[in-house]
Amino acid sequence: MDFSIKLNALALRTDAALESWVPATPADAPAGPARIHAAMRYSLQAGGKRLRPALALAAADLGGADPDAALPLAAALECVHTYSLIHDDLPCMDDDDLRRGRPTCHRAFDEATALLAGDALLAQAFVIVAEAYADRPALAAALTRELAAACSGARLVGGQMQDLLAERSGPSTAADLEFIHLNKTAALLECSLVCGGLVAGLPAAALADLRRAGRHLGLAFQIVDDVLDATADTAALGKTAGKDARAGKTTYVSLHGIETARRLAAAETDRARAAFGALPGDPTFLLGLADLMLSRRS
Amino acid sequence: MDFSIKLNALALRTDAALESWVPATPADAPAGPARIHAAMRYSLQAGGKRLRPALALAAADLGGADPDAALPLAAALECVHTYSLIHDDLPCMDDDDLRRGRPTCHRAFDEATALLAGDALLAQAFVIVAEAYADRPALAAALTRELAAACSGARLVGGQMQDLLAERSGPSTAADLEFIHLNKTAALLECSLVCGGLVAGLPAAALADLRRAGRHLGLAFQIVDDVLDATADTAALGKTAGKDARAGKTTYVSLHGIETARRLAAAETDRARAAFGALPGDPTFLLGLADLMLSRRS
Repeated sequence: MDFSIKLNALALRTDAALESWVPATPADAPAGPARIHAAMRYSLQAGGKRLRPALALAAADLGGADPDAALPLAAALECVHTYSLIHDDLPCMDDDDLRRGRPTCHRAFDEATALLAGDALLAQAFVIVAEAYADRPALAAALTRELAAACSGARLVGGQMQDLLAERSGPSTAADLEFIHLNKTAALLECSLVCGGLVAGLPAAALADLRRAGRHLGLAFQIVDDVLDATADTAALGKTAGKDARAGKTTYVSLHGIETARRLAAAETDRARAAFGALPGDPTFLLGLADLMLSRRS
Repeated sequence: MDFSIKLNALALRTDAALESWVPATPADAPAGPARIHAAMRYSLQAGGKRLRPALALAAADLGGADPDAALPLAAALECVHTYSLIHDDLPCMDDDDLRRGRPTCHRAFDEATALLAGDALLAQAFVIVAEAYADRPALAAALTRELAAACSGARLVGGQMQDLLAERSGPSTAADLEFIHLNKTAALLECSLVCGGLVAGLPAAALADLRRAGRHLGLAFQIVDDVLDATADTAALGKTAGKDARAGKTTYVSLHGIETARRLAAAETDRARAAFGALPGDPTFLLGLADLMLSRRS
């Protein structure tokens, strides 16, 4: 199947999983939960590329899992990703008005609602995993462990804190920058691939390859983000462009220049491709995802 | 054993569990995670009464569980409770400067750090459950399911949103108020008792009794909160007193007056005591906890 057709099909299946796994807002629901669920769905439906779900579904597919088995996981990963975006956009964090071309959650609703909707999305990820895999408790427990570790103060949250501290204290070193990217970005990509492998019951060696691939994809992804912030315009990006330079933020572009940054992103992508190539099964689609993440325009 | 000695012993054991299950901040840690972990520990160590851990440990004890088996659960529950306090205190929520007699997390650190520390505490609860009960995966999955459901947009977060909406839109009905208390407060008390019962392997009927007891304890707890806000002073309370009346907030006191509110709290406590009395095992300590929650002064 053509890569972009398959990617689109996975995104549609992820959307359907989100539709069934994130509570809707019946007309007679109490106002509090109704507003929370509306805000959760607003941000989930903002047209993300569903890259983390695609990574999880593709990793599960490698092991020949039932094609539907990883869909709740895919929905859970998108809930975690969306929670992190909502909180990162808040005024006390990056203070962004625009996300994926639409007002950010706290602009469309308000700050308290956005904070709570993010909290509820994080909790919902664990609701989904616990309920969807209740008949495979060892899998449910392993997925919970991976997801929770990726979201912890040592990883996703610690990376975001380090990023904020770097903005406050001025220029960072290349090592600081790598730490931020490994945790703020790579942690959830690693988690997506490894959890997909867990659903498919892949052996430990394959899980280690998936984790390694996620690490390099995460670094490539974030270097590309730095390049796009410096080269794309806000309309194409769907979020405010040029923020890094205006904020005097250390990025791969400020450290190395645009051309070297592009080369570094390509090198990280090559490392991810090599890890995918070591896996059992046909890695064609995963290699396509790695290329897409390198060549994306937004 | 005397009630208050036992309660104190459980709190000390919970503190030790938190010490071992919440990451410390080694001197060579990167600044981001170090700051997050410091903020998490600051709020965890603010001298809470550890009521949710005590409920969980006491419920587990009913089933004759290994006394240490429920300690990681106790730590996880306190992480969830502390996350909810940190986020509720933020400027965009209740905007509180004082919690348990000390500056709130965002006052002691800053708003971004407090937001992230809350996020990390929620994630840490799931890390703890997944890691501590990894050798009992069915239990780990069941605990994750209970905890996540209690934290969801339908319950803890939905109740907090409803509370904020009620403050914005003026007087609430008694039914609205009950909805807020059942979700904002009772959800986590129910969860504490039920999860304690799960660790001990109690049968479904006992779990249902524990859930019922938690529901009534939660209502009693919140009515007492309303009474204390109207009658205690800030020093005794350790948080700002008299806020409800100043905000024109609907409470059990504004709806029913102080004496009737006190009577309603006692009636809910009686219902909780009846549910505890229906359980297998000796409920003496749980009955003591119910009485403490009714007669507390802060």
